Amino acid sequence: MSVFSQTIKETAALVEAALDQFLPTQGGPLGRVADAMRWGALDGGKRLRPFLAVAAADMFACPRTRSVRVGCAVEMIHCYSLIHDDLPAMDDSDLRRGRPSVHKKYDDATAILAGDALLTQAFEILAEAETHPDANIRCALALELARASGKAGMVGGQMIDIYAEQKNFDFAGVTQLQRLKTGAIIRFSAIGGGIVGGGSADEVAALSAYAEDLGLAFQIVDDILDETSDAQALGKPVGQDSEMDKATFIKLFGMDGAKTKAAELVESAKAHLDRFGDASAPLKGAADFVFERKS
Amino acid sequence: MSVFSQTIKETAALVEAALDQFLPTQGGPLGRVADAMRWGALDGGKRLRPFLAVAAADMFACPRTRSVRVGCAVEMIHCYSLIHDDLPAMDDSDLRRGRPSVHKKYDDATAILAGDALLTQAFEILAEAETHPDANIRCALALELARASGKAGMVGGQMIDIYAEQKNFDFAGVTQLQRLKTGAIIRFSAIGGGIVGGGSADEVAALSAYAEDLGLAFQIVDDILDETSDAQALGKPVGQDSEMDKATFIKLFGMDGAKTKAAELVESAKAHLDRFGDASAPLKGAADFVFERKS
Repeated sequence: MSVFSQTIKETAALVEAALDQFLPTQGGPLGRVADAMRWGALDGGKRLRPFLAVAAADMFACPRTRSVRVGCAVEMIHCYSLIHDDLPAMDDSDLRRGRPSVHKKYDDATAILAGDALLTQAFEILAEAETHPDANIRCALALELARASGKAGMVGGQMIDIYAEQKNFDFAGVTQLQRLKTGAIIRFSAIGGGIVGGGSADEVAALSAYAEDLGLAFQIVDDILDETSDAQALGKPVGQDSEMDKATFIKLFGMDGAKTKAAELVESAKAHLDRFGDASAPLKGAADFVFERKS
Repeated sequence: MSVFSQTIKETAALVEAALDQFLPTQGGPLGRVADAMRWGALDGGKRLRPFLAVAAADMFACPRTRSVRVGCAVEMIHCYSLIHDDLPAMDDSDLRRGRPSVHKKYDDATAILAGDALLTQAFEILAEAETHPDANIRCALALELARASGKAGMVGGQMIDIYAEQKNFDFAGVTQLQRLKTGAIIRFSAIGGGIVGGGSADEVAALSAYAEDLGLAFQIVDDILDETSDAQALGKPVGQDSEMDKATFIKLFGMDGAKTKAAELVESAKAHLDRFGDASAPLKGAADFVFERKS
């Protein structure tokens, strides 16, 4: 087993256990919204974003009790965004990770509130003293996460994506869209790990450059899988982006061109980590994984 | 003009100008979501919550450049909650502050995203160094706001409210519901002002006690207005809570009993502020205002 495979299994288990503790008790006084938060956030697959945070922090010998909290915060943001994106008013997806999406399992109101609660709890976790004894670090994390996930990050990207349908985007346009919609959170995951680990400004900048290339490669591969995979392997409906005539990298480069572009980005991502030597093996492995993944 | 009337006009103007700066530019690169955020957050009436934050901070001679930021953060949370609550999947309200609600003016997807963006930006503002030079203060603010607005606060209360319809609540039950749904954010407003102003733990606790009584009085008066006011005065549909058979204080106490209870709470709220002497006049005036308001 590669060092990447081993680390991502380890971190996924740590994050799953921590999320289970953070989330309100099933059937408790919060009832339905607690159940919906758990449905939308637990059993969540690979946990790539928390892995990036923990693996980046590991390079600075950061205690995992701290970096797992950063991983949980970014995963809560990721899960809230999936819950809201799946709503009938947005992408209208009934299936997520091979199971009914939150609004199908519960209802639209519960899904909206569960998403709001997860989004809010991400900041609660980062602001708590357990995340880092230095409040400057905690504030830096909260600030970066807010910028990555808000109007000038993920939410802004989602808005552009919805209203960009049937428009002709060039490479710069699609790249900018994906940098906001999915890239900003992937970038936060890596730099969040560097920040909680006490990395220097230069080291955090290297992590940022790595994650920007990685995020774009990730999205290109997502577009490829959306065209070539099947719903069972992917755990969600396929062909929707193409069907809805959304801007994708496949339309720009063709299938072969997209694969070449993704491979280039993965090599570039890894090169940014050379300064960290052998300690960067898990993160470099993640870049290879993003290129090779089948779901 | 009372010191309260003067202060709330001043703070509303300061907050309006600051929100105008914080919010993304209309028609800018973020387009529709920026417009919707502005529609849902600007021209927002009395701005009672920011007033509480600024007036509480004023008692500690806190620079208003700082306290207005806390006020903007809590107002963004308040406005996001109204935008999401008004959605067809939730309360399905077409009218807010006498104007079309955000999803009526734009659409459901845009309203969901605009709410998400406002919620996220509240934490961005608190985490920024301009809010207070001491990161411990900024983290305390972010933590308290997250707790007030999340699963164990506003969102939890909203969830209970939706699923509590047609259930029989006693006074303790309705009080607990309102403490979460509306009280937690009002409490944050007051203690947020105390925290950013550098108040002692005792002083912040006094502000908390004041705000808890005030919040409950506010909600009782809300129930009274929902039965007695008209849509034009209130700027939103009336009689909905009663029609939907939601738990209200009127059902528990009757109209006269509810008025008596609100009056008692207002006196109790003011008594908690006696330790601050004359400096508490604006906050005491707010308590009287809450009781006397007609909309």
